[in-house]
Amino acid sequence: MPKNRRILLKNRPTGLPSPSDFELVEGPVPEPGEGEVLTRTLFLSLDPYMRGRMSAAKSYAKPVELGQVMTGGTVGEVVASRHASFAPGDVVVGQGGWQDYAVLPGALLRKLDPRLAPVSTALGILGMPGMTAYVGLLDIGRPKPGETVVVSAASGAVGSVVGQIAKIHGCRVVGVAGGKAKTDYVVEELGFDAAVDHRSPDLADALAAACPKGVDIYFENVGGATQKAVWPLLNDFARVVVCGLIAHYNDPTPPPGPPMLDVLRKRLTVQGFIVYERSHLQADFLRDVGAWLQAGKLKYREDVVVGLENAPEAFIGLLQGKNFGKLVVKVA
Amino acid sequence: MPKNRRILLKNRPTGLPSPSDFELVEGPVPEPGEGEVLTRTLFLSLDPYMRGRMSAAKSYAKPVELGQVMTGGTVGEVVASRHASFAPGDVVVGQGGWQDYAVLPGALLRKLDPRLAPVSTALGILGMPGMTAYVGLLDIGRPKPGETVVVSAASGAVGSVVGQIAKIHGCRVVGVAGGKAKTDYVVEELGFDAAVDHRSPDLADALAAACPKGVDIYFENVGGATQKAVWPLLNDFARVVVCGLIAHYNDPTPPPGPPMLDVLRKRLTVQGFIVYERSHLQADFLRDVGAWLQAGKLKYREDVVVGLENAPEAFIGLLQGKNFGKLVVKVA
Repeated sequence: MPKNRRILLKNRPTGLPSPSDFELVEGPVPEPGEGEVLTRTLFLSLDPYMRGRMSAAKSYAKPVELGQVMTGGTVGEVVASRHASFAPGDVVVGQGGWQDYAVLPGALLRKLDPRLAPVSTALGILGMPGMTAYVGLLDIGRPKPGETVVVSAASGAVGSVVGQIAKIHGCRVVGVAGGKAKTDYVVEELGFDAAVDHRSPDLADALAAACPKGVDIYFENVGGATQKAVWPLLNDFARVVVCGLIAHYNDPTPPPGPPMLDVLRKRLTVQGFIVYERSHLQADFLRDVGAWLQAGKLKYREDVVVGLENAPEAFIGLLQGKNFGKLVVKVA
Repeated sequence: MPKNRRILLKNRPTGLPSPSDFELVEGPVPEPGEGEVLTRTLFLSLDPYMRGRMSAAKSYAKPVELGQVMTGGTVGEVVASRHASFAPGDVVVGQGGWQDYAVLPGALLRKLDPRLAPVSTALGILGMPGMTAYVGLLDIGRPKPGETVVVSAASGAVGSVVGQIAKIHGCRVVGVAGGKAKTDYVVEELGFDAAVDHRSPDLADALAAACPKGVDIYFENVGGATQKAVWPLLNDFARVVVCGLIAHYNDPTPPPGPPMLDVLRKRLTVQGFIVYERSHLQADFLRDVGAWLQAGKLKYREDVVVGLENAPEAFIGLLQGKNFGKLVVKVA
């Protein structure tokens, strides 16, 4: 008889989480109620936003309670269904969390067609990170042909899609990533115009050289030194799309931001957003990104870790930039 | 034969300007060329943005060169005209600068009707400051009924109009100003819901008490301690309209801004703007604000200094918050 392994939040970390902040427990496989579906997790998505959920600090979503299973997006196979739209064998995407089995309301699941794309892409380029890139760049950044777009965490699940969509829209695209393998990848594989290593001691100069006409859109995934290097390059009327600040998620107190005088003098727009609040754009996203993917205009890369038990370590590595591409855990 | 007194920029100030950064010189009255108009200055507007023009730092407008007359908006009487639209005796608004007489291209002048409102209002509520308030609040802040609007420099030329227009739009309006006379004025005369003294040692607590539902729009004219007190009160999706930062105009280096993590977590929009770039809204502004003024829904207060020679000292006082209402110099 199968068991359900679950990874719980054991402690609220200070700074970088450690493996001891998580606890793996075993229990019975739950049963679905009316309108619910039992899924067996195939893939678990690991994403930077999860660091926020481990903290009790006020944010846009409730924290995970201590002793509760870590939340997370999952692709799963339906094992049992008490919802008319789903049958055993269906593959669905939803919020199953860090566990082998999840009972989920059918209303919150979306069925996948495994013939269209590998199902794990529903956690990446065709899922939340891809839609984050699409919405943030197009709805907030509003790129115009010929503009220069800088994206940080450029080889990551969001950044890689931002840069490629910006290229489709006729922009000059400069990626910032950690290490030569990643900077090579975004230029040679993804077709960015240039890439800069954020570990480089001459980051500011290298970025300035890569942006001879300044920066019109900065898609911010990181904060820290990259933000400092981009900021002076912003053109008048530049848009700063604040999607993530992974360099600061482990900071005990938030650091100050860049000078407001620049916001005034350059008439900048600095805007934060959460993809879930723009769900009216999901149909557009699936249509456009699905078509670009089919046409070979978008590429993606997954970093697949095998085994649910390895999720904590993989997640800690994500916060340190150790992954290369969209990080997913192959659970079954 | 009349002379033209002109006030030139003599030195680029570091920190607060001093009277010795200006020089008053006398010379002949200039003559208009084809398409130009000679005006005698009646009123000169003094505005915080002029501090930026005294600095060589890159900004949205060119600095005043050393030895050149200080720029500034003026209401003047036409003395001689070589432009078909203007005749001697007409009263016009334009950029005459800190001087008794100015030759200006007719194309850049707007004729005033002295029967509609005192002509000095073309430098205040019916001029650049009023339009700054109108555009910043409505086009960028986008107030909704029931929202809470905080405006700094609330008794000033811009802030007083922001708050009154926000009231017309059904908002709760809280002003921040320096001293009891000004905080009383914005509540008792202008009809704000509350006002807080930025010199108060418990500014943060007082502001929090005045904004029990948080802050949806912060109209920023000041920066400094007021910004620090407002920032934690911002609600999700709040808009920060960055119009001015007078507390920092004398800073040798721009101070850091508020944390970007808040921009992300609260999905803030922080946007700088310059009124001249939204001139397509001028007709709307003149129609709406003109009508509200006629209907008695808007009040204004002028701080009139007599004598061109007193402009430097009055301007230095403006940067210290010594004026009370729109500061103008009565030149003739």
